[in-house]
Amino acid sequence: MNRVKELFGIKYPIIQGGMIWCSGWRLASAVSNAGGLGLIGSGSMYPDVFREHIIRCKKATKKPFGVNLPLIYPDISDHIKILIDEGVKIVFTSAGSPNKYTSLFKRHGIKVTHVVSSESFARKSLEAGVDAIVAEGFEAGGHNGIEEITTMCLIPKVVDSIDLPIISAGGIFDGRGMLAAMSLGADGVQVGSRFAISKESSAHEKFKNYVVNSKEGDTKLTLKELTAVRLLKNDFYQKIQDAYNAKANINDLKELLGKGRAKKGMFEGDLKEGELEIGQVSSMINKIESASEIIIDMMDGFYKAKESTSNILI
Amino acid sequence: MNRVKELFGIKYPIIQGGMIWCSGWRLASAVSNAGGLGLIGSGSMYPDVFREHIIRCKKATKKPFGVNLPLIYPDISDHIKILIDEGVKIVFTSAGSPNKYTSLFKRHGIKVTHVVSSESFARKSLEAGVDAIVAEGFEAGGHNGIEEITTMCLIPKVVDSIDLPIISAGGIFDGRGMLAAMSLGADGVQVGSRFAISKESSAHEKFKNYVVNSKEGDTKLTLKELTAVRLLKNDFYQKIQDAYNAKANINDLKELLGKGRAKKGMFEGDLKEGELEIGQVSSMINKIESASEIIIDMMDGFYKAKESTSNILI
Repeated sequence: MNRVKELFGIKYPIIQGGMIWCSGWRLASAVSNAGGLGLIGSGSMYPDVFREHIIRCKKATKKPFGVNLPLIYPDISDHIKILIDEGVKIVFTSAGSPNKYTSLFKRHGIKVTHVVSSESFARKSLEAGVDAIVAEGFEAGGHNGIEEITTMCLIPKVVDSIDLPIISAGGIFDGRGMLAAMSLGADGVQVGSRFAISKESSAHEKFKNYVVNSKEGDTKLTLKELTAVRLLKNDFYQKIQDAYNAKANINDLKELLGKGRAKKGMFEGDLKEGELEIGQVSSMINKIESASEIIIDMMDGFYKAKESTSNILI
Repeated sequence: MNRVKELFGIKYPIIQGGMIWCSGWRLASAVSNAGGLGLIGSGSMYPDVFREHIIRCKKATKKPFGVNLPLIYPDISDHIKILIDEGVKIVFTSAGSPNKYTSLFKRHGIKVTHVVSSESFARKSLEAGVDAIVAEGFEAGGHNGIEEITTMCLIPKVVDSIDLPIISAGGIFDGRGMLAAMSLGADGVQVGSRFAISKESSAHEKFKNYVVNSKEGDTKLTLKELTAVRLLKNDFYQKIQDAYNAKANINDLKELLGKGRAKKGMFEGDLKEGELEIGQVSSMINKIESASEIIIDMMDGFYKAKESTSNILI
């Protein structure tokens, strides 16, 4: 049986990436109701907001759903307490060491998936006792590794290295990308950007439309000296470039970034001054769809791609 | 029928990338004899050497083979004259505009494939009248685009944009990568790095062994101010980094690069001072194989990957 479906008890091995300012209960429950696995992105939520989203998500779906927990988050222990209290059974951890909380989660019967950007971190996650891995390539949106390993190169390395369910992330837009990731050896896929621009995403309409109108080459991995992040080009991105050209040091960059840039851009729709996090598939996103339409299109595209590769060598 | 096989008259839609200091007549003929398409990399050859390689390749194989022609090469008109004289029927052009020579080649009955790193260049190539496209992702070795578009994101964009045989390059190491590329919509694949480290490659043994021992994250796309190139980290790469840290300008970088760095590294085996061009798959290359072993392994892996994805969703 497909290991990702089995692990999470879902119909399709499609995970909706947990994303700040985009994936609240509305998106997560819509994805889960459509047969994928929805994740509440806790990284942009205060503890009480986070609890509210979990409660609402439980009401909105009877299907499995999970939460994404960036381990660098300051209120992390409150978040952990809340998700255990509320009976969340699936946690995706990222941006930190899987050693710290994995055994705690496991004691509470919670399934833990850790997000990595290299084979070496995948091995460490295996040692920490996680149940699955998201291996995320350079082309992914938001925060990312600094080694720039792409999905094509990352997935086979991780698959050959560790025996766990592997979820491929980064550059997966449609059913073709899903079949490609599975050809490389992944058991399932995590899709972020396309769901970030869905109807149920809590991102601002201005941000969604900006992504819909973006072209190839419009995103860039930057701010590697702080926490590497893939951004859509805008005035703020240009300011970062200007700072680099003016030989900015790490403190200059910190000051330039300041606080709340992602909220400003993605949630409040300030396209000039905000930080606009999105993956390279941005240029393929040309409409705002519902979560269910996205999943139906991906599954349809998956079977079409399978059909068209069936005799491709003849 | 598979469009790449049909266009070139080959058994498997596997192209061996034309590479400086690696792919002379020996490698190209070995690949062609094994059922792929071998390419002589003319970019590192003086005109008389280039002619010699074509003549030898014709003696070494009765199968189709081609040449790779970087259009920035200074002796380009001599090279073009030679390849027409010698009856070469397949040319892969790169690093320049396809407008300049495509019609000349076509008048001589030569099939022209142009290498691009973005959808917009793919469209321009179509307009120039080429027969096929190599779409090369960010993860590829050697010279590359500056927009950093990865294979996962590039191939579906190009496939949706133009109706020509599409050859996917960048990050393809084995049959899994080949099936992945074809799932994305490519008709065939171009493999560079793995053939660069083959027995028949004219690269220096020291370079080959250095690649065999490299790890993930050991390559980096750099020198974007000159011509972007993916290099394996070594002392020379570190000097480039030091220069960047010391706020080098474009002239400093040109002076640092100098002449003949790639020859020094890849052909003469100077691992400290040489430029070592290789793709991100470097970390997957762990032995020196013959061209024929590589092709057999890729085909074998392709069918295995197809088998293992056949019921992957169940």
